[in-house]
Amino acid sequence: MEFKEFDGFKYIDGGVCAAKGFKANGLNCGYNPDKEKNDLCLVASDVMCNAAGVYTQNKVKGAPVIVTKNNLAQTGGKAKAIIANSKNANTCNVDGMEKALRMCELAASKLDIKPCEVIVASTGVIGQPIPIEPVETHIDELYEGLSYTGNAKAANAIMTTDTSPKEVAVEFELDGKICHLGGMGKGSGMIHPNMATTLNFITTDAAISSEMLQKALTENVKITYNCLSIDGDQSTNDTLTVMANGLCGNVEITEEDENYKKISKALYIVMMNITKMLAGDGEGATKLLECTVSKAKDVDSAIVVAKSVICSPLFKCAMFGEDANWGRILCAVGNANAELDIDKVDVDIASKVGAFAVCKNGSGVDFSEDFAKTVLGEKEIHINISLNSGDAQAQAWGCDLTYDYVKINGDYRS
Amino acid sequence: MEFKEFDGFKYIDGGVCAAKGFKANGLNCGYNPDKEKNDLCLVASDVMCNAAGVYTQNKVKGAPVIVTKNNLAQTGGKAKAIIANSKNANTCNVDGMEKALRMCELAASKLDIKPCEVIVASTGVIGQPIPIEPVETHIDELYEGLSYTGNAKAANAIMTTDTSPKEVAVEFELDGKICHLGGMGKGSGMIHPNMATTLNFITTDAAISSEMLQKALTENVKITYNCLSIDGDQSTNDTLTVMANGLCGNVEITEEDENYKKISKALYIVMMNITKMLAGDGEGATKLLECTVSKAKDVDSAIVVAKSVICSPLFKCAMFGEDANWGRILCAVGNANAELDIDKVDVDIASKVGAFAVCKNGSGVDFSEDFAKTVLGEKEIHINISLNSGDAQAQAWGCDLTYDYVKINGDYRS
Repeated sequence: MEFKEFDGFKYIDGGVCAAKGFKANGLNCGYNPDKEKNDLCLVASDVMCNAAGVYTQNKVKGAPVIVTKNNLAQTGGKAKAIIANSKNANTCNVDGMEKALRMCELAASKLDIKPCEVIVASTGVIGQPIPIEPVETHIDELYEGLSYTGNAKAANAIMTTDTSPKEVAVEFELDGKICHLGGMGKGSGMIHPNMATTLNFITTDAAISSEMLQKALTENVKITYNCLSIDGDQSTNDTLTVMANGLCGNVEITEEDENYKKISKALYIVMMNITKMLAGDGEGATKLLECTVSKAKDVDSAIVVAKSVICSPLFKCAMFGEDANWGRILCAVGNANAELDIDKVDVDIASKVGAFAVCKNGSGVDFSEDFAKTVLGEKEIHINISLNSGDAQAQAWGCDLTYDYVKINGDYRS
Repeated sequence: MEFKEFDGFKYIDGGVCAAKGFKANGLNCGYNPDKEKNDLCLVASDVMCNAAGVYTQNKVKGAPVIVTKNNLAQTGGKAKAIIANSKNANTCNVDGMEKALRMCELAASKLDIKPCEVIVASTGVIGQPIPIEPVETHIDELYEGLSYTGNAKAANAIMTTDTSPKEVAVEFELDGKICHLGGMGKGSGMIHPNMATTLNFITTDAAISSEMLQKALTENVKITYNCLSIDGDQSTNDTLTVMANGLCGNVEITEEDENYKKISKALYIVMMNITKMLAGDGEGATKLLECTVSKAKDVDSAIVVAKSVICSPLFKCAMFGEDANWGRILCAVGNANAELDIDKVDVDIASKVGAFAVCKNGSGVDFSEDFAKTVLGEKEIHINISLNSGDAQAQAWGCDLTYDYVKINGDYRS
């Protein structure tokens, strides 16, 4: 995937350790029978952070989600560490809360902080009691291995069926100081975010109040993670947190000024790119699909239409088959709960080798099937829809629906 | 699939010709390159019928949907014939209305009725202009072959990726007269009804006013077709009509009396069974899934929860894999837009060989994985969910998500 350039922002390495003062580590504690794969990670800031989070809207919430929300409420938006595991979601278990709290205690005791200053998250199978011993026996090793370059080990530890880790970070200036903002995320099924998605952790060395951080996070979630769908199933464990430790030395951002806009943009860049990575690495996916809806009445309409297209299983299958069956795009546009005039809708399909129009004013137009095959043969496909009824625009991201999605999910528990 | 028995109703053969005075025929006119398969059908009543219909809520509507709605409005709910084709949906084409009207004219001219007395429907690929010549050159043969036992030929003509035709009919008494009500339907992808599904045609020889027929149809659609989902994609061409010709000799039903309840029940039985047939024959399906939600606060809550489960692709994949991954059922329950207390939810999984509990009060309970495999090895799987917060109940139907769904839809147009 190529990263789009933005003025004033430079992509850098380092993920969750790109910002000053953040250490990380990851290891295999035994949840994952494949010893080559990490399943437990710890991220810690040298100093206390202002923190913000968004969580699943599913009525079934993993115990770690409840604990993390409670912790941030109790501290008034302060946190110093994250502990997270994969392979078991610790959800729908009678002793779930107890186990999630214990994970916080274990991390806190090593870091000499309060348990409520720890963000805890779990991902994996729902409804299987999580054994806590693996964390207890590995917490020393996990803590001792913390390092300012441990981001990749941590990013590996939160992967489930992801085929690759997802890390993005940017560098930018605030008050003449060099700031950094970076994060890691995991996919790759049960992805249909509603206020947050899966596990995503972002860190920054900028100084910003918890309130402003929450505001920037909520605004950007709407146009990034919430515009992603892999399969329409919203997870019970969705958690996205941002921690800001202020070590870059800018004056703390406490209102919607130019600096707020800059850090909000940095958040957008990191979150949008992780969103695209999540889409491209959806379970079984062979293609990243990006739907851009323009000339909409308002942003909400544009989002609803773009998501309807990205969510259509028939469209997703057609993309897997590299078949320009655009009628399914129109069908999905028509199913969207948005005000629009179907007789004004234009649709183009594009990839890096070129673009072709398939629909003008709601009716089909001739195109070369050969050229269509060439365009659809690429890994990243863009569906550009113009509603011709306003000035607003939004994007949504997804992936194709493939044999492998069915295979992966036909027997996920074993 | 076994038909459930209902007191006072007897299952009979005959489908759309089960009711007195209805003739049908179907043939291959050339839309389907496989000459063994029919693609055009005609159904005609000996006398004028009261008629009712429900249609897709997609903003993109097939031209035949618009024409049929206009026709029934123009005649005040009267119709005498149906003409329908498969392989081409006649949707998103600049000349769609012209072609749909021409189909009505061709049928009407042979039957010596007005074009507006004809119900027209098309199903198949969206966005490809439909050639009208095949209908023009075959209308004589289609008309001449009309017969009181032609129902199977007609049921075959509306099939797309269906693997079998779908016909159900029942016999019951009204005013001491033997009445009949039967119908045919087609699936099997782009199925996520909202007020109607795909193409379904029902006929009866009972006498009932158009208003009461519309009322009974609308009531029953809510708890049958609208509780079906194959893939979450609502078709542009959904059309369901009922025609009542009164030939059985009962006194015309004009109010909500006992006879209304009886014919409404007959409609329910036929529609519910066709719904189950559609679910079991969903694209690529190997299993019929029936989700029953009981002890809900109200019927709407029960429907929303049952549909959320039936629509979850992860749950559908697990059923394909015969994997009792019940956490996905809880996840889908939690995602439903309904008022419920997740800590009260019980879930059982059953098939004809037995049942086992997977969740009690929102948490997992132990079960034998071996027995679970045996239960899930069957073709018809029942998910029984008790919300323990009221007295209402509803059902929804769907199917598993399989490799073949992806295969069929990866290259549907060719």
